[in-house]
Amino acid sequence: MANERIGIWLIGALGGIGTTASVGLAALHRKLIGEQGLVSALPRFKPLQMADWSSFVVGGHEIRESNYATEARQLFEKSNVFSEQLLREVQPSLDEFQSNVRPGTLLNVGTTIESLAGTAALALKNERPAAAIERLTADLQDFKSRNQLSHVIVANVASTEPPVDPAARQYDWKSLSKKLDSDPQSPVPASSLYAIAAMQSGFDHVNFTPSIGSDLPALEELALERNVLHVGRDGKTGETLMKAVLAPMFSARNLEVMSWVGHNIFGNMDGKVLDDPINKANKVRSKDHLLTEILGYKPSTLVTIEYVEDMADWKTAWDHIHFRGFLNTQMTLQFTWQGCDSLLAAPLVLDLVRFTEREHRRGTSGILRHLSSFFKSPMGADIPPQFHKQYDLLEDWADEVAGG
Amino acid sequence: MANERIGIWLIGALGGIGTTASVGLAALHRKLIGEQGLVSALPRFKPLQMADWSSFVVGGHEIRESNYATEARQLFEKSNVFSEQLLREVQPSLDEFQSNVRPGTLLNVGTTIESLAGTAALALKNERPAAAIERLTADLQDFKSRNQLSHVIVANVASTEPPVDPAARQYDWKSLSKKLDSDPQSPVPASSLYAIAAMQSGFDHVNFTPSIGSDLPALEELALERNVLHVGRDGKTGETLMKAVLAPMFSARNLEVMSWVGHNIFGNMDGKVLDDPINKANKVRSKDHLLTEILGYKPSTLVTIEYVEDMADWKTAWDHIHFRGFLNTQMTLQFTWQGCDSLLAAPLVLDLVRFTEREHRRGTSGILRHLSSFFKSPMGADIPPQFHKQYDLLEDWADEVAGG
Amino acid sequence: MANERIGIWLIGALGGIGTTASVGLAALHRKLIGEQGLVSALPRFKPLQMADWSSFVVGGHEIRESNYATEARQLFEKSNVFSEQLLREVQPSLDEFQSNVRPGTLLNVGTTIESLAGTAALALKNERPAAAIERLTADLQDFKSRNQLSHVIVANVASTEPPVDPAARQYDWKSLSKKLDSDPQSPVPASSLYAIAAMQSGFDHVNFTPSIGSDLPALEELALERNVLHVGRDGKTGETLMKAVLAPMFSARNLEVMSWVGHNIFGNMDGKVLDDPINKANKVRSKDHLLTEILGYKPSTLVTIEYVEDMADWKTAWDHIHFRGFLNTQMTLQFTWQGCDSLLAAPLVLDLVRFTEREHRRGTSGILRHLSSFFKSPMGADIPPQFHKQYDLLEDWADEVAGG
Amino acid sequence: MANERIGIWLIGALGGIGTTASVGLAALHRKLIGEQGLVSALPRFKPLQMADWSSFVVGGHEIRESNYATEARQLFEKSNVFSEQLLREVQPSLDEFQSNVRPGTLLNVGTTIESLAGTAALALKNERPAAAIERLTADLQDFKSRNQLSHVIVANVASTEPPVDPAARQYDWKSLSKKLDSDPQSPVPASSLYAIAAMQSGFDHVNFTPSIGSDLPALEELALERNVLHVGRDGKTGETLMKAVLAPMFSARNLEVMSWVGHNIFGNMDGKVLDDPINKANKVRSKDHLLTEILGYKPSTLVTIEYVEDMADWKTAWDHIHFRGFLNTQMTLQFTWQGCDSLLAAPLVLDLVRFTEREHRRGTSGILRHLSSFFKSPMGADIPPQFHKQYDLLEDWADEVAGG
Repeated sequence: MANERIGIWLIGALGGIGTTASVGLAALHRKLIGEQGLVSALPRFKPLQMADWSSFVVGGHEIRESNYATEARQLFEKSNVFSEQLLREVQPSLDEFQSNVRPGTLLNVGTTIESLAGTAALALKNERPAAAIERLTADLQDFKSRNQLSHVIVANVASTEPPVDPAARQYDWKSLSKKLDSDPQSPVPASSLYAIAAMQSGFDHVNFTPSIGSDLPALEELALERNVLHVGRDGKTGETLMKAVLAPMFSARNLEVMSWVGHNIFGNMDGKVLDDPINKANKVRSKDHLLTEILGYKPSTLVTIEYVEDMADWKTAWDHIHFRGFLNTQMTLQFTWQGCDSLLAAPLVLDLVRFTEREHRRGTSGILRHLSSFFKSPMGADIPPQFHKQYDLLEDWADEVAGG
Repeated sequence: MANERIGIWLIGALGGIGTTASVGLAALHRKLIGEQGLVSALPRFKPLQMADWSSFVVGGHEIRESNYATEARQLFEKSNVFSEQLLREVQPSLDEFQSNVRPGTLLNVGTTIESLAGTAALALKNERPAAAIERLTADLQDFKSRNQLSHVIVANVASTEPPVDPAARQYDWKSLSKKLDSDPQSPVPASSLYAIAAMQSGFDHVNFTPSIGSDLPALEELALERNVLHVGRDGKTGETLMKAVLAPMFSARNLEVMSWVGHNIFGNMDGKVLDDPINKANKVRSKDHLLTEILGYKPSTLVTIEYVEDMADWKTAWDHIHFRGFLNTQMTLQFTWQGCDSLLAAPLVLDLVRFTEREHRRGTSGILRHLSSFFKSPMGADIPPQFHKQYDLLEDWADEVAGG
Repeated sequence: MANERIGIWLIGALGGIGTTASVGLAALHRKLIGEQGLVSALPRFKPLQMADWSSFVVGGHEIRESNYATEARQLFEKSNVFSEQLLREVQPSLDEFQSNVRPGTLLNVGTTIESLAGTAALALKNERPAAAIERLTADLQDFKSRNQLSHVIVANVASTEPPVDPAARQYDWKSLSKKLDSDPQSPVPASSLYAIAAMQSGFDHVNFTPSIGSDLPALEELALERNVLHVGRDGKTGETLMKAVLAPMFSARNLEVMSWVGHNIFGNMDGKVLDDPINKANKVRSKDHLLTEILGYKPSTLVTIEYVEDMADWKTAWDHIHFRGFLNTQMTLQFTWQGCDSLLAAPLVLDLVRFTEREHRRGTSGILRHLSSFFKSPMGADIPPQFHKQYDLLEDWADEVAGG
Repeated sequence: MANERIGIWLIGALGGIGTTASVGLAALHRKLIGEQGLVSALPRFKPLQMADWSSFVVGGHEIRESNYATEARQLFEKSNVFSEQLLREVQPSLDEFQSNVRPGTLLNVGTTIESLAGTAALALKNERPAAAIERLTADLQDFKSRNQLSHVIVANVASTEPPVDPAARQYDWKSLSKKLDSDPQSPVPASSLYAIAAMQSGFDHVNFTPSIGSDLPALEELALERNVLHVGRDGKTGETLMKAVLAPMFSARNLEVMSWVGHNIFGNMDGKVLDDPINKANKVRSKDHLLTEILGYKPSTLVTIEYVEDMADWKTAWDHIHFRGFLNTQMTLQFTWQGCDSLLAAPLVLDLVRFTEREHRRGTSGILRHLSSFFKSPMGADIPPQFHKQYDLLEDWADEVAGG
């Protein structure tokens, strides 16, 4: 392993998560920080001989006109994270990563995301789907060859797209492929085009967003055909993680959850995009189904996600859980989660890449079910909704890999 | 099963938990309430053919001068739980249970608990340990025979005693037995005397309190000798349950808990007893060791439990968890738990009795490890501290019993 | 004063506030309760020789088919307020009040409120405005004569109407009066028709709702013409009271409020009506303008009011205030208000009636500026938005009255 | 005014508040920051022609061995306040201020504060009171002359001393003066010795700490004799400010506060000193008397202040207010205050100095009653406990000064 170099290709490379993952990886290269927040760094997973942090090189697609130095500086100033000194020290790595960033595609991203695009991405706005896939694929392969990478893992950390037309689920790979070749309108959104480009290049795909990405029958087929791994959707970082942890407690104690209300406020770019109700629909849906699955009945629920600019990257969630216990007694649990969104998400993205890379070495393909604890809406059949049961899948996998 | 009658003998029969368990059991007899808050009523445990609620009869030891009607009325008035109508309807059962209440012992309970005692208990204050055990045993056997019970389970729900002299752990049963026979001073506290009376009668023992009870090598020996079951200590109802559920999340995500501060306020009798710092020491210890065990390191911790009279039975806990994530970013989780203490505890006591009764039918003896999810400081070796792992033990047991 | 009887005529007589005010007044008659929550009972106002609680008789208009006994029972059962014993003891008074309840009008109340109406109110649905006013006036006068009342004060505690057409502000009393006589469509909503009926009868009018009521130039004119008092709008009971108290603190300390987010959940009838976005608009507007007025600049604000059925009358508000202090340091204040909506509002309604009655004895007319501390959107020019400054107006008035 | 230079002499110059005030003043000199958090900068006080920020020069007494650069850096690193860039830019001013820092006195400061002392202060440990006063006075006069200051205001921002022997209140200035001259043991603590040195030099004295300082009959006499101003005690920055603002609301609405529980956690040096129960006693007393004064009755209260190291300067307070409203209904208000202690306090210290300097120009002497809104335990007779009434005193004073 020691001498191999592995690529992380970020979709939405310069967003809050992409920037934080890059800053963090650069800091890990230089051992400037500890490994807090990194699941793959837990003693539990030491025996697995995971790839060294120093093995990874970052590149990516991005539709905005910006660069890592600027984005990192903004996060620092608005959200009071990182430090000037750290930013100075990682600057050379960020410059190196920056040289690997290429324009993304705007096909089917919706008007809100489109409004953020820079000239390079806008110039490609009228690309046909086939041309887009070809271009994205060429970018990936160029990244690999220029950096002498043994393997690349593509991770989508871009803003949430509008929900996809359910018709997209009806294609098999052959018919979708044909449609993409012939039609000037893409039947699937950008997130899926990126996934196709990755898979066709033989690269694994991690979807950290609520967008559809590879979560389509046609792409599951493609993954198996090309012998690649994929996993998603929607990283579980804050309030939903809490739900997945707390709801089983109410269930185990036979305490009837009458209502679970969750209000989220934050002010980063992701929040701005979610201020568009079409994009938000995708997100709220992903946060809400969980409770019913865990509890076995549908309590009254309410989830809001609101953009409040001055909160910057600090996502604050207030949850109010009203429950009924013995002799009809009504009680309440409230919690306030004050987490920095990108700082919670970025290490999980690095973990997902690292766990995926480890499994890639085992030579399997298809959905990575054992990584479901990282997601709000994990792909794959029969995934238990309880966090601890999902985490058991990860530990069981680790035992198997370590044992093998 | 249908025609058997089973006894529940409560130590601290007229306290908040004892009263609520009795009101609740009476209401279950008459099907006046649903089964919320009762773990043993979950669909998961249906196949086990647990004893019907109607099988159970309540009796108990109590040091105060009072009765169920008065105590239930007080809980209703001070804490706004139950309802006048319910209390009217369960009155006949409460009267029946009341006729089974006998004076407890004051040996080694400490001055704070002693100050609550009524004339009947005070009259017995100078009893020698051997005489006390004999009397308590006679009460238990009288309960069984008068009520034609097939079996009795003794459950301690009394106020917290002062911590026990560590020397008590050095006895084996033979030497302790001799000491109890010969010495006018008891080497063990009241909670252990009750446990001895139970075990010598062939009855199982559940210790829902932080007091030592049967958690002594000598009594573990006695349990095996008399072929009885026992389990404890310190019911896990609110803030500590939350800790046992949330700490594994921080651990799983490699988020470093820097400090975990918990402030508890409540105003019931238990709170009054805990206002005595000697008694409180036992409680705080039980609440605090958990985090270190789960996290694998010792964060800065602070736990307070304060008596605020107007809060009555409503225990409100505020917990502030300060943690460090990726790139040294410090974040915060706070929760407020507003639970009614007796109403959370009482159903668990009924569950413990019911689960114990079920295991009794299987004919085993010793510590009930699979009930550890109910306790803050579960007895038995190698009990995992995480709530979900303890709960797995219960589910595994259920599978085994159902399968057998 | 001692022998006079004074009428309280409630619009929305059987709603949560109307019911609670009636139960409370009946309990005060019998001295079953203390005077907590009643501003007019403070020692500060003792010298004013306010009317005795026993002087007041309740009647009112209501569009639903129900009665006090049923409504009070429901509040008791759903929200765990009152007690069975209290309800038994006040039953005779409630029956007496019930005999004074008459069908209200549905003119311009909007479809959501209309959907709650009973047969009596529905039968009058096509009444012309002039006929409605005539009928409402007759009800008021009949109430006075049948009960031998010296005076009547009409208090609107009904559900929130949709916002009124701004054109309504352009009428003077003469033109409005003509329009009401001639037009089959009322140019003003029900709340204003009730106010007109009150004023034309020589009765004072208190508007505890966000609906427009007497807050129209034409009605201000009418009040002066008929020599009656009036005051409103929108009782300030919980979250907004907190805003009016806390915002001056930030202002006094030159702490810059960057954002103030408030989320409200509750499950009473008022909440159901507010679930209609048209009705909600009126309410949110009333809650939001305050901060800008107090702070002198517009922070980022967000107010939600959501219907969560199981919360019943317990309105829970979570407010998150993000502010900037010295050296640009960002800090946070959060509060959670768990108040019982009707129980907070009802005593204020009784206070408003009592204060109004006291001023009525002084023979003045027009807007009661000194009662502005009771309202979210107080009528009258130059009302300071700070709670303590509004309260100073009340204390100054009390000094003047006591001194006179 | 423009050309005059005014001295701020800080007792505890290098503590969190002293350091922040110095950093902030230096930043104001260079106009690097806005005036958030500074009361004296409010438009309301513009007409008063307050001294320019650029007029002020900092010096002070300190018992520890440190310097501004180190202390500011520590606050930056531990508490994530200031910024590296700001610290670089203010460094020249901090160096200038540093040259004015002299060793303080350890007389009667208690063992906890003593344990923090550096060699310079320890070398003076056995000074007699008279010698100490003489030395401190010389330091002050040297500060004035070296810096060509027109006036000096001494502000105590040191850690809390143990409570003073009540006997100290029995001296008049003459007898205290004699005692100080003759006795090797000081009858008063360090905070009073500093105040005496200030007053004897003709300088005003501001006591921002809970220590006794000038709050003794003998020193009030001295202040009038020397024609100087003084004011204190215990800056009101966070939780107590909230109490002074919220308690009047409960009072105005006749809502009975049954209990008010406040838990404070923080991890700065002040917190470390308060971890000594003797020093803490002084602080808790200062926080607790307020409620009874405002409410007119004594609710159940509980105040804790606990040192939790990782919280650094971020003082987090959780308050739980349990109150009773109409018809005995019990409700709850909770708040969480997350404030940075030094950043809240430092601007108030600068304000107090500026307001004092303004009054000094008017030539009055004695206690500055109109500054009572800044203090938890304001000196002076008949100070209203409500924040808004105290603030009215400040506004009235401003009107008077502006008018004169």
